[in-house]
Formats: sequence, structure tokens, C-alpha cells
Amino acid sequence: MKRSERLVDMVKYLLARPHTLIALPFFADRYGAAKSSISEDLAILRQTLANDKNGILETVAGAAGGVRYIPFVGKKEATNYLHDLADRIEDPDRILPGNFVYLSDILGSPQDLRQIGQLIATKYAYSNVDYVMTIETKGIAIAQAVSRFLNVPFVMVRRRPKITEGSTISVNYVASSSERVEKMELAKRLLPEGSNVLIVDDFMKGGGTLTGMEELVKEFKGTVAGMCVLCETKYASQKVVDDYQSLIKITEVDRTKKLIKVRPGNFLEQTDFNRFPK
Amino acid sequence: MKRSERLVDMVKYLLARPHTLIALPFFADRYGAAKSSISEDLAILRQTLANDKNGILETVAGAAGGVRYIPFVGKKEATNYLHDLADRIEDPDRILPGNFVYLSDILGSPQDLRQIGQLIATKYAYSNVDYVMTIETKGIAIAQAVSRFLNVPFVMVRRRPKITEGSTISVNYVASSSERVEKMELAKRLLPEGSNVLIVDDFMKGGGTLTGMEELVKEFKGTVAGMCVLCETKYASQKVVDDYQSLIKITEVDRTKKLIKVRPGNFLEQTDFNRFPK
Repeated sequence: MKRSERLVDMVKYLLARPHTLIALPFFADRYGAAKSSISEDLAILRQTLANDKNGILETVAGAAGGVRYIPFVGKKEATNYLHDLADRIEDPDRILPGNFVYLSDILGSPQDLRQIGQLIATKYAYSNVDYVMTIETKGIAIAQAVSRFLNVPFVMVRRRPKITEGSTISVNYVASSSERVEKMELAKRLLPEGSNVLIVDDFMKGGGTLTGMEELVKEFKGTVAGMCVLCETKYASQKVVDDYQSLIKITEVDRTKKLIKVRPGNFLEQTDFNRFPK
Repeated sequence: MKRSERLVDMVKYLLARPHTLIALPFFADRYGAAKSSISEDLAILRQTLANDKNGILETVAGAAGGVRYIPFVGKKEATNYLHDLADRIEDPDRILPGNFVYLSDILGSPQDLRQIGQLIATKYAYSNVDYVMTIETKGIAIAQAVSRFLNVPFVMVRRRPKITEGSTISVNYVASSSERVEKMELAKRLLPEGSNVLIVDDFMKGGGTLTGMEELVKEFKGTVAGMCVLCETKYASQKVVDDYQSLIKITEVDRTKKLIKVRPGNFLEQTDFNRFPK
């Protein structure tokens, strides 16, 4: 097999398995090629990704070593995408009665979900995330997108008990939107004890739902790797969480005035994009 | 830029944009290369994908022409994956009280969702699907996975009215699991009139929910491109739909006997895998 054919297959193989260590002998065997040829192939691949600031190919040395593809977006691409997304959300037609903002089209767009998933996976690429957690319903699209690029499973917290999930653990929380005490629960067999969990959601007002998920992670004896939402909006009272990231921030929304103001959230300033090898 | 570097970038670019026509001048411009070089690159790419029976690179001739990457799985890979999945589901620990089957781990696994998405996208690769439709909650993972590989948006039907989606159209349906009349609804602005819709879901018993979604597509003056579920199970009464595909079929489940029998569904025999160019 020629180098060019090997490269095509190799890129396809690695992209489908982010964050997974692939041993050099595996590729040598797959293509019937010498290890030295494979090393050269990987050097080309590494350089091309780095030049484009779009993905990192990491080398792990030693007998148990190999290579690992890390989806990683450069700061310029991230900034461009978030400004474009903010502009698209800043459309008065999106303001629904009650000053809710319509985002369902974005949450169903494969190209947006790819970008959103890659962005969040960039920030948490080196956080040793075991699981991504979200709460039904609209957070699911975000969780699945991140799960794809971190290549770890995602789990879905339920607002109502389900008979198709077995035993659960539940917590109470105060929803910022209704200011009522609600219950959320997660199937016991979904999340192993002691997991490092990245919490994501589509929308955040006061942060009550995020706090509930934090509680739930504690009930499973786990740790919280981070909390990240697609969109945060201004909230009259004090937010109940400090340490979170938002990709997008809605700073004003008023249906009667047909006014909506949107800009990138704190994600850009809180993410270290300087990971690309020199 | 060298051929090898162009190939790496090209594969990455095309894989992120399935079913999208990319004009040759776009690549020539992106790499500062002659069109003849780009044509040779694409020939290598086409051949490598076809040899591996894993993806098709289609050429569209003429002034408005270019290339298009179609995610497409070969029959052997499809058969292997579905037998492996059936074996994993055939685990008595999955049987929940009421003879429900626990599938939430599979619906949160990025590697399973990639395979499932690619498989369903293979069957409907040439069906001109405009939208993928599902109903909350567990169908969402399937819809999003298929949406990624067909590169069309997915829409989520709700069982309960939501205030964050604006006006809706609703239909009534008889749920096979409860045999009660229920209501489902879809936001009007999510699905343009006259769309060709692929309906997917995680689980099917009698097919009542699928019928409801068919009705909903009609209410939106659309056509149904197909209906596909991850898992169907035996049902005491007559199923209310005929024309559907299932990836997996559970033929027996009995919690008291700790017995569950699972095999691939009708998907394999109903899919035309012979699309790879000679």
C-alpha cells in the first residue's frame, strides 16, 4: 500500500477514535508496512494538523506507546465561530413569548453540533473526563456532541422517573426558571462511582439545574471536571454557580421591543488554546 | 503543499461535511495547487475508500460539479457490528422489572452511536432525506447520530408542550406500550412544509409512536422517506406498521427465567449494500 493510501485510511481511522492510544505496530500490521514508514506517515499527519491549528496528534513514547488524536480547535476558529453563532442568535424572530429564546434549530444542526462539540472538547481535552452528564431534554444534543469528540460516554439525568432504566439516585434542586423545588435522578448503573464528570447543558439562567447535577455527581462519589453551557442569559437574582463556562451570552432580550443582544460567553477567555506543539 | 499534506487535510475536510458537493476549484484554491493535481488526489481518495468498503467519493461532472463524500458501510462490517451488538444486548442483567430492556449505555456510547448512525445513513444515503425526525427522549441520540452522517438537521417531537419552541402542530396517537391515546407535537418553525422526513426511534413495540410521527409528517405536508428503529421487540397484538427497519430484534424476554434472545433485525436484508463503484 502506498503512503498516500495509508494516510487516507489513517486519518479516517484516527478521526473516528479521538483520545484513543493506537500502538504503532497496529498500523504497521494494518498496512503491511515497516514501522519506520508508519513513523514518517504520522510525522506528516502531525505537522498538517498542527499547521492548520485543527487537532493534535500526540506521541506517547515507550513500549506501551503510540499515537493519540486529540480534537482541538485553534483560538481564531473558535472566536470566528462563536461570533458568527452570536450573530445568528441575535435575531428578534427568535424571541418567544415570555422572553424565551428559540434555539432548537441550532440544537438540531449537525454542523453547529460538530463545532460546539469540538469547542467544548478543546477546553476539556486534558481534564481526564470519564463521563459527560446532562439533563433531559435539550442538553442531550450538546452532551452527545461533546461525547463524540472526547470519546467518552454521556449520561442523561431525568426529570421524571422512567421504568426503562432500573434503580436510580435522586436529588432535589431549585430550578432558576420556576424557583420551585424539583427532583432529578440518574440510573445507578449508568455512572460508576468515583467518575470524573463534565456537566453540560443547553441553557442556563441562575444555575439551579447545574447545581442539582453537581449534587448528583457527589451522590455518585464522583468529581466535577467542569460545567459548560451553550447559552447563558442574564438573571435578575444572583447566580448560584461561579465556576462555569458559557459559549454564548444573551445580555438583553425584550419581546415587546423586539430586542435581543448576544455575544460570545466567557468560554474564549477561560480556555487555553496554546496547546499546539511548536 | 505536498500531496500527502493535501490528502490529510482533504480527508478531514470531506469527513466533516458528508453529502456536501465540494467544487474542485475550492480545493485548488485552498492548497494553491493545479486542478489536475487535485483530481489525482481525489482519485487516490476514492480508490482507498472503495477498497476498504467504507465510504464513497462521488464525482459530479460539469461546470457545477465537484465531489461529494457519502458515508457508506459495507455489508460485512454492518453484519459484524449488528451481531456483536445483539450479543451484547443478550445479557440477562439488562432485563428490568416489567420485561423492559436496559439500553441506556448503548444510547450514550459514542462508538456505538457512530456505528448506528453510519448504518442507518447507509440505507438512506440515496433517499434525498431533508430532515431526521424523532420523539423525545431516547430517540434523540439515534436521530443525532443519523443527522451527522446524512448531514441534514434533526427535529424532536415532544410528548409535552414546551414554552421554548413557539407554536406547534399536534396529533393524537395510541402508544403501544400503554394502549392509551396520547398527544405528540412539533414546533411549526422546525420543519418546513413539504420536507422528506426519515423517522427514527430507539425502541418499537407495536409501532404506535411511529404511526403518530407519520401523521405528524402529513400534517406538515411532508413525505416519509423511511422509518428505522434501533430495537424492535415482539408484541402480542398485530403491529400497526409494516414498512419499517429495525437494526436489532428482541425475540424473547422473560425476567423470571432470566432469558433474553436477540438477533439482528430486518435491516440487513432490506438494505442495498451494492453501491460501491467497481
